[in-house]
Amino acid sequence: MASMFLKTPVQPTSPFVPKHNQSFNLSSHQSFSLKKQNRVLKNPIRISCGLIEPDGGKLVELVVPESMRDIKKREANDMVKIKLSKIDLEWVHVLSEGWASPLTGFMRESEFLQTLHFNSLRLGNGSVVNMSLPIVLDIDDAQKNRISGSTCVALVDADDNPVAILNNIEIYKHNKEERIARTWGTTAPGLPYVEEAITGAGDWLIGGDLEVIQPIKYHDGLDRYRLSPSELRAEFEKRNADAVFAFQLRNPVHNGHALLMTDTRRRLLEMGYKNPVLLLHPLGGFTKADDVPLSWRMKQHEKVLEDGVLDPENTVVSIFPSPMHYAGPTEVQWHAKARINAGANFYIVGRDPAGMGHPVEKRDLYDADHGKKVLSMAPGLERLNILPFKVAAYDMKQQKMEFFDPSRAQDFLFISGTKMRTLAKNKENPPDGFMCPGGWEVLVEYYDSLAAKDSGRVPQTISA
Amino acid sequence: MASMFLKTPVQPTSPFVPKHNQSFNLSSHQSFSLKKQNRVLKNPIRISCGLIEPDGGKLVELVVPESMRDIKKREANDMVKIKLSKIDLEWVHVLSEGWASPLTGFMRESEFLQTLHFNSLRLGNGSVVNMSLPIVLDIDDAQKNRISGSTCVALVDADDNPVAILNNIEIYKHNKEERIARTWGTTAPGLPYVEEAITGAGDWLIGGDLEVIQPIKYHDGLDRYRLSPSELRAEFEKRNADAVFAFQLRNPVHNGHALLMTDTRRRLLEMGYKNPVLLLHPLGGFTKADDVPLSWRMKQHEKVLEDGVLDPENTVVSIFPSPMHYAGPTEVQWHAKARINAGANFYIVGRDPAGMGHPVEKRDLYDADHGKKVLSMAPGLERLNILPFKVAAYDMKQQKMEFFDPSRAQDFLFISGTKMRTLAKNKENPPDGFMCPGGWEVLVEYYDSLAAKDSGRVPQTISA
Repeated sequence: MASMFLKTPVQPTSPFVPKHNQSFNLSSHQSFSLKKQNRVLKNPIRISCGLIEPDGGKLVELVVPESMRDIKKREANDMVKIKLSKIDLEWVHVLSEGWASPLTGFMRESEFLQTLHFNSLRLGNGSVVNMSLPIVLDIDDAQKNRISGSTCVALVDADDNPVAILNNIEIYKHNKEERIARTWGTTAPGLPYVEEAITGAGDWLIGGDLEVIQPIKYHDGLDRYRLSPSELRAEFEKRNADAVFAFQLRNPVHNGHALLMTDTRRRLLEMGYKNPVLLLHPLGGFTKADDVPLSWRMKQHEKVLEDGVLDPENTVVSIFPSPMHYAGPTEVQWHAKARINAGANFYIVGRDPAGMGHPVEKRDLYDADHGKKVLSMAPGLERLNILPFKVAAYDMKQQKMEFFDPSRAQDFLFISGTKMRTLAKNKENPPDGFMCPGGWEVLVEYYDSLAAKDSGRVPQTISA
Repeated sequence: MASMFLKTPVQPTSPFVPKHNQSFNLSSHQSFSLKKQNRVLKNPIRISCGLIEPDGGKLVELVVPESMRDIKKREANDMVKIKLSKIDLEWVHVLSEGWASPLTGFMRESEFLQTLHFNSLRLGNGSVVNMSLPIVLDIDDAQKNRISGSTCVALVDADDNPVAILNNIEIYKHNKEERIARTWGTTAPGLPYVEEAITGAGDWLIGGDLEVIQPIKYHDGLDRYRLSPSELRAEFEKRNADAVFAFQLRNPVHNGHALLMTDTRRRLLEMGYKNPVLLLHPLGGFTKADDVPLSWRMKQHEKVLEDGVLDPENTVVSIFPSPMHYAGPTEVQWHAKARINAGANFYIVGRDPAGMGHPVEKRDLYDADHGKKVLSMAPGLERLNILPFKVAAYDMKQQKMEFFDPSRAQDFLFISGTKMRTLAKNKENPPDGFMCPGGWEVLVEYYDSLAAKDSGRVPQTISA
């Protein structure tokens, strides 16, 4: 994949936008004031660069200026240290770039309770922003005792390097059962995020304001493609986007997805937008063991893009750094809200978003329609236009993916994720037109590397 | 108790306000328009009869005019019938009088989902009202099949008498696990309302608009004291209340409660209100087996009032018809919201409101402070003034209930509910000044009747 990126970093029309080193100036004040003026006009004029305002009016950015890094590192070294897990670090990343604007750090109890009970936060000016997932940091009794009367702590990585300082801390009880029940609507054992990050967590949560010492990097060859909301906004403005439609995904892209995205653009053009831009936004944080890992998905997305099913002119591919909760209607709000902060004013929502099978019972955990219903009613998301996903299936007559037409149901073949995985594992091919051949090869290669791993052969590494 | 009521129905200063037969004209438009004018004045003038506006602007009342009763009964007889449980009937009562305004019947899916996820409902005009408990009616597969294509059904009581018609019905899935988890923050077995009303319930919910055929009555001698929100508002206006402070309770009143209520009135007078009126509002619907039953509580409240610890001039005692969920911070919002509809603009909230012990673990189910915190942040309750409960305890020096003074903690004795029950069961007396002797006697009598029941003697009936 690296080769593609290395070849294309200066191409303005590449959908994979390389991450720039300098920070961007959003010139947001200009566009926002234009937007505001616009609202009072009787006949509003479309302002091409008027991106949707971030939640709270201003994008939060928590990385300290480069000139302050050494000072902050030294300060951190003198503080009580809390070691961050991989998921904790992903949340620091999310917070640091303002995906969760206007949050300025891990939640204090007031924010935690509002999230659990109302999926939203009321701001000082009385306005409401959406916030459906608790973004919290747990500590255990021993850590709590060590912190004692301190007002700030240092957050360190696995090698004890300081990552951030948490200021004006507040420590409060972590009622795991209540958190799980209110977030997932179940307390059944086997929820991936719960098992990974909550079951073994401490009995206390620590909130506060973050100062992040330097931008979070993963050194996995994909960092350049982790654009922050600020960088995405700059990219959309550079492209003169007058509508941005976001597509959240954590699975390989097939031609049904591509059809949907192309069709959405067509609809937006029909609505009068001149330059709708697609944000193809694969999730990059924690996913469950049987999901396809990020590096393979990115490789697959690259092949799909190369194949030309999506137009690089009006597509931006970037990585969304959040971990997955698999919390269905609760989580889809987070997925949508974070994209507002990145400048998206349209959000495509599918069947059973962020859902999974019930970990114990033989049924889906969530009603497949609840995600889009809850999204359309969610407080703080009123400004976002929700675009429900149309069902695409393999049209055996036309030999391509097509929107399902119930009047000729017999022509359509539904290829489930399980079916797709089984085919790829067995190195069989799906019907022509289901996925571009290059993309399919990546999947076959991935499952082959898994089988090799299982059989004791060295797994094939993937160069990103 | 009946004797007291029979003696006092025309006394304007009785705190137990008898229920009038005619329906009241709220003259709400007048007072509301005054309120609205008031908001724009630089120096607002206090309007004595300006009660807080009901949620949604207009109090919902769902009982059909008397002239329509027979027609509606006949219509109901031709419809598919759904038999109401005792709790279902309590909810019909709640809905019929507008405690849940602006709800006009059992929730449809949109309202159910908003309640579970956001504890609030967004109205057509974009405004938000609080709604934290699902008010739903379940049906099973067989009932669903019988309803088939009907657009309305008849709701009937245990004797098949039509109680109400549910119009423009919507049937949707009843995911009990999700409902329980999101409402209680736990799915542990042993939650009283869950065991009584959800575990054995059908797998479908049926929502729609209610037409209630006649006012709901219980014929237990207490009906006259079940004032509707409309009747309470009329009473407050008659008394020229310029502030109404509500006290929700489901337990016997001791002198600590009385102290709190008296002190609240004092504080409101200090704030400049001329005539604050207390709504002493015991809950009358389903309660768990070890709570003191309504009839005994009312008898106890009567004795406490007779004793003169609360001033009948500025106290209204009435029954709140809702069943209890014991859902802590989620339920306290319902308790508060319903009282807005009855005209209260101040709400007293105690430690661990609507809480109980965890049904499985050895701890309280909810954090004792979460109730008041959640209440103060809840969407749709911004207009309500929350008055946190001050802790009262028995002051052994002064031999009376007094607000706890940590500077002389050794003087105070905390008498828990368990301790109180143990004393009453053993016919022992609490310290002088803990509760008026008449009220205490009622409790001793109640536990004596229980013991009699247990020993096979005929339990003492209580004349209401």
